[in-house]
Amino acid sequence: MTPVRVVAFGGGHGLGASLRALRRASRELELDITAVVTVGDDGGSSGRLRAERDALLPPGDLRQALAALADDDPARQLTAHVLQYRFAGSDSLAGHAVGNLLLLGLMEMLADPVAALDHAASLVGAHGRVLPMARHAVGIEADVLGADPARPGEMVTVRGQHAVAVALGHVEAVRIEPADPPVCEQALDAIRDADWLIFGPGSWYTSVLPHLLTPRLAEAIVTSAARKLVTLNLSADNETLGLSVADHLAALTWYLPAFRADTVLADTKWVGEPEPVRRAAETLGAHLVLAPLAVADGSPRHDPESLGVALVPVLGAAR
Amino acid sequence: MTPVRVVAFGGGHGLGASLRALRRASRELELDITAVVTVGDDGGSSGRLRAERDALLPPGDLRQALAALADDDPARQLTAHVLQYRFAGSDSLAGHAVGNLLLLGLMEMLADPVAALDHAASLVGAHGRVLPMARHAVGIEADVLGADPARPGEMVTVRGQHAVAVALGHVEAVRIEPADPPVCEQALDAIRDADWLIFGPGSWYTSVLPHLLTPRLAEAIVTSAARKLVTLNLSADNETLGLSVADHLAALTWYLPAFRADTVLADTKWVGEPEPVRRAAETLGAHLVLAPLAVADGSPRHDPESLGVALVPVLGAAR
Repeated sequence: MTPVRVVAFGGGHGLGASLRALRRASRELELDITAVVTVGDDGGSSGRLRAERDALLPPGDLRQALAALADDDPARQLTAHVLQYRFAGSDSLAGHAVGNLLLLGLMEMLADPVAALDHAASLVGAHGRVLPMARHAVGIEADVLGADPARPGEMVTVRGQHAVAVALGHVEAVRIEPADPPVCEQALDAIRDADWLIFGPGSWYTSVLPHLLTPRLAEAIVTSAARKLVTLNLSADNETLGLSVADHLAALTWYLPAFRADTVLADTKWVGEPEPVRRAAETLGAHLVLAPLAVADGSPRHDPESLGVALVPVLGAAR
Repeated sequence: MTPVRVVAFGGGHGLGASLRALRRASRELELDITAVVTVGDDGGSSGRLRAERDALLPPGDLRQALAALADDDPARQLTAHVLQYRFAGSDSLAGHAVGNLLLLGLMEMLADPVAALDHAASLVGAHGRVLPMARHAVGIEADVLGADPARPGEMVTVRGQHAVAVALGHVEAVRIEPADPPVCEQALDAIRDADWLIFGPGSWYTSVLPHLLTPRLAEAIVTSAARKLVTLNLSADNETLGLSVADHLAALTWYLPAFRADTVLADTKWVGEPEPVRRAAETLGAHLVLAPLAVADGSPRHDPESLGVALVPVLGAAR
């Protein structure tokens, strides 16, 4: 049987959960996984590497995706763990993850981010490929109403992924800079050839929407014959305070009017009253699937095992 | 046939040449290679990691040994190359080799330098094992006569491997600090079980002699039934200016009176008049073997190919 070709979009912990869930699902379904990762991170270790070394790509989200796809073999897992290991202390290395420095070195040495990522993937025995959303880092900025609590009616432009992610107030518009970054041909190929494209979970404005804001990716997404799945967040994160779960779906077509989906996946409990979400899904052309997706401790995080179990019937359904 | 068990002592480029030569020799002889590496480096990237992060071990010489033992497969070689890749520029990462940071992360995370080195070895498919001379970094200091050219008759204590390596004048005595560092049991086992122990080439005071100055290693070396080979340097480096090639051999017994060898290997041309060297070798109980060992461009560096070819009949000789 040919594998089901899946492209997962996102960044950070949300994409990590999605990829770990796909790894879980691949116990029951043969999957060919590609991650297409946001490249807007300007905080923490990645932000310092962009500011101090003009890093071609912020490595943090790429590293997280590689670790999520690592093979289960103990030696591969140890490699994944050391890539995730973050130097403590207060010297100049403190805060950097080892994998960020390895990816930086590979990208500088090879001057080809895809070759660098493919090699890092081989070191962890990755079950899938990790590609960047664009061939160089992008900026993210947003017009935010009430970013300053003292002036709730005022619109402020907030610049930088980290600043947008933690901004108070209501995001009225989000943009990437440059507006039309050079994309990765391998990502376009993967999107074109995919059976499924998966959006979310993750920080909506800074990890999920940037792909739809990238013109050539957006075009590939809407013209691909692949089915589309949106995995909804469990609760609003800081940057989407005031945005309901249904609003998250509306944001997809707000930024990419031609966007349509086949399936929207949400957690049975966290979704609350399902009707508004069902209607918002139908507006996208999608049906809503409810399943238990959250970790057991009551925190609003996806459990890769549960999400993986829920993905099997969705991704495995005959065309 | 059981492999010939070889332990190579040293550090830096000299040990790298020795290990690459052993890799070359292993095309014709089955070898089981262990490198026991000096841990006194306090210059460059390793020195900064010791000073700023109190690194358990200076990783630079260990990384060089791992790269020298890397498998020839292109992916393994690419891993070895990125470990050797040194960040350029002027920011806080500049000057660090990627492999130093990876080894630092592994050592911090595992709190076991041998487990860290074994894992790094697996990443490059190392043909052999790399072990540290001691379980933590050591200091190197020397009494140097005439270190200050303005006062040629004055004895000065020079502290630090880097300072000793570049000191002017004549080294009268070299010491490690602490005088009896904790050693690596795996290194003692390898020395006990070896067929051959190989000393040099390399910076004599800072890469070759420190092993003989480490009491428990020295005891293991003199009590091992293994045969001993000394590979002489091609010319005096800065720290041994004024020391003839024969003096290099005399230094071994000066610091470890019980030291005896079976074979001394020297380059046919660079050795010059061979008689003084032959007599110095005989004082150690060794016979002198002359062979072409140097690179073709006339610089005083060992060619791993030529050194490897010369090692085959030495290491392969029946007991």
